[in-house]
Amino acid sequence: MYKAQTIQQHFQVDYSYKVVFTRNVFNETNTALKNIINNDNAKIVVVIERDIAVYHPGIINDIAGYFQMDTVESSILIVKGGESIKNDTRATEEILQLIHNNQVDRHSYLIVVGGGAVLDAAGYAAAIAHRGIRLIRIPTTVLSQNDSGVGVKTSVNYFGKKNFLGTFSPPYAVINDSVFLETLDERNWRSGIAEAIKVALIKDAVFFNWITENSRALNDRNMEIMEQLIFRCAQLHLEHIGTAGDPFEKGSSRPLDFGHWAAHKLEYLSGYQVLHGEAVAVGVALDAVYSRLSGRLDGTDLQRILNVLTTLGFEIFHPLLLQETTMEINPALVKGLEEFREHLGGELTVMLLRNIGTGEEVHHLNKNILSEAVQYLAKSNVLIQE
Amino acid sequence: MYKAQTIQQHFQVDYSYKVVFTRNVFNETNTALKNIINNDNAKIVVVIERDIAVYHPGIINDIAGYFQMDTVESSILIVKGGESIKNDTRATEEILQLIHNNQVDRHSYLIVVGGGAVLDAAGYAAAIAHRGIRLIRIPTTVLSQNDSGVGVKTSVNYFGKKNFLGTFSPPYAVINDSVFLETLDERNWRSGIAEAIKVALIKDAVFFNWITENSRALNDRNMEIMEQLIFRCAQLHLEHIGTAGDPFEKGSSRPLDFGHWAAHKLEYLSGYQVLHGEAVAVGVALDAVYSRLSGRLDGTDLQRILNVLTTLGFEIFHPLLLQETTMEINPALVKGLEEFREHLGGELTVMLLRNIGTGEEVHHLNKNILSEAVQYLAKSNVLIQE
Repeated sequence: MYKAQTIQQHFQVDYSYKVVFTRNVFNETNTALKNIINNDNAKIVVVIERDIAVYHPGIINDIAGYFQMDTVESSILIVKGGESIKNDTRATEEILQLIHNNQVDRHSYLIVVGGGAVLDAAGYAAAIAHRGIRLIRIPTTVLSQNDSGVGVKTSVNYFGKKNFLGTFSPPYAVINDSVFLETLDERNWRSGIAEAIKVALIKDAVFFNWITENSRALNDRNMEIMEQLIFRCAQLHLEHIGTAGDPFEKGSSRPLDFGHWAAHKLEYLSGYQVLHGEAVAVGVALDAVYSRLSGRLDGTDLQRILNVLTTLGFEIFHPLLLQETTMEINPALVKGLEEFREHLGGELTVMLLRNIGTGEEVHHLNKNILSEAVQYLAKSNVLIQE
Repeated sequence: MYKAQTIQQHFQVDYSYKVVFTRNVFNETNTALKNIINNDNAKIVVVIERDIAVYHPGIINDIAGYFQMDTVESSILIVKGGESIKNDTRATEEILQLIHNNQVDRHSYLIVVGGGAVLDAAGYAAAIAHRGIRLIRIPTTVLSQNDSGVGVKTSVNYFGKKNFLGTFSPPYAVINDSVFLETLDERNWRSGIAEAIKVALIKDAVFFNWITENSRALNDRNMEIMEQLIFRCAQLHLEHIGTAGDPFEKGSSRPLDFGHWAAHKLEYLSGYQVLHGEAVAVGVALDAVYSRLSGRLDGTDLQRILNVLTTLGFEIFHPLLLQETTMEINPALVKGLEEFREHLGGELTVMLLRNIGTGEEVHHLNKNILSEAVQYLAKSNVLIQE
């Protein structure tokens, strides 16, 4: 009666979330967060980066007050920030324990307050607990507010491999509060701007011009300009994820990773002493020079790119790009290209530039040109230093 | 220039996979599996349940031959089966290590051969490695071929909680090979039939009648009838997941979990000595009696349900439903209702029956009626034993 044959399963899953821009999210009169939590019986737990608690004294009390928590100690977990949280399985374990102890279910909320690494790790724990509890991200750095924090990924490092464990798990909501940017040190203030330059270069020439015109204001820590930069950068990232047809990266194309193959490797080689955004600035410079040397990008555009990076205070070269003994391109860097392919799988796909605002994907990089590009940056660096 | 406001992100993700029905999947002339692997450069690793390797001697060689593997030892991992694999974090670790060591990327394949627990654990590892590598499931039991193995979930147990860790991760493909059913012991042959009865009761009266008419053939281990049962049951599960609008269970409704709140608790209370399908038979019986006692289901339908279960050799009562000292309903069982709610979150939602083929969701169970239902099953059991 029932004849066995192949069954083709097919369905779609809808994902939607708000990214809200505000100030003083935990002020009791600010309703942004309360408006998002639509389940009165929901349990709420909070993971917060230690530095945020240190630089914003009173924030723990504010959070407890905002949610009228009566068990602050068991509901709020303070964690270390930076890449080290992603290398530490005990940190993941602690966050899972927080979820378990508080009986946080799939209709309850984990709120995470911190930089990109903390968002990644807490997001990973939230994604695997009960097959995914609701995660509200409150990113506290430029980088996480304009890029990773508004995206759909979670991850921790494992077997010494960056982001070896992770999921594609859109957040329940994201709240960008610019108050947290006030206490960033200079490197972290600057670092995230690299992602804005990156996305402008491949998507939006007008935005690139705007960044160029406003680089002095950014250096002067003009908050209004930074808020605008973050908004437009987040918007471009969200548009790409939402409309480019591959939000969960099933294919091999990753235009938003322009400049990132070298950046990932440089971060790793430096033992994460180079911040992600700083590494992206070098990676963007390298791939822009490669784009020029391979006949894609014209010289004026290249100069404008290197100028805006250096005007903003980014280094566009790092000694680790060269092998110390030979002063040739570092073989470890070249190996990063294969590792970049391996993480996503499929065919190597690297974004280069045709002109400012227009990218072009290629499936092969020429090692001689790459080597020349590294030498070019080494020389530019000397010129700039002088 | 860029005015910050709330950005509403919204996108859809497409999921599709084939469920193929075949025999002798690893016979070199069988192209079912080869047709699914569309990436010539892909790496292939295999996780296989120990009992399958034991009861199907030569299968490891067949697999190695099928894929022309030259590194069998490093590409095939033999794991223990049953619930214990889900309780053992080292098992997850071993599977992750297999993925890591073989540099399996997001365009490569992990093939898992085994029962539901092995599929769950290997599926979980595949889901979190590189944010999800391609998983091909080859379920080897009735239960996994007609229910869990064709679905979208992965999980392991943690903090002593069943399925505390997991993801919603549709497989890349599923291949149901009925050869594996030949070596099942009697309990495992029978056990999975409970899920077919369950889905028939809430979705398809014609299928229920068909099962009733074929219960003798099923007892006689008629493979053709079993293949038909598995096909229709898998089809009904896939249809529900694909068309009911909530494949990743964001809401509180879980019609496919008819009979499961008590089943989960009974499995746990028995230390997993009661198989999942056996527990589902008891859970289905309990909720059918409750449906009768609460005035939903008529007596004839109830009798037909209890008859088919007992004809197929299922116990419809288990001593753990009663408290030994008082012979009243076991309070631990009642607690299972709240735990069932907690795992999914939101409002308690339990499926009951209006008639055979038609369910009705309720948000509350009356404890007195529940107690009466347990007593009813206890008495029925005595009558059947006599």
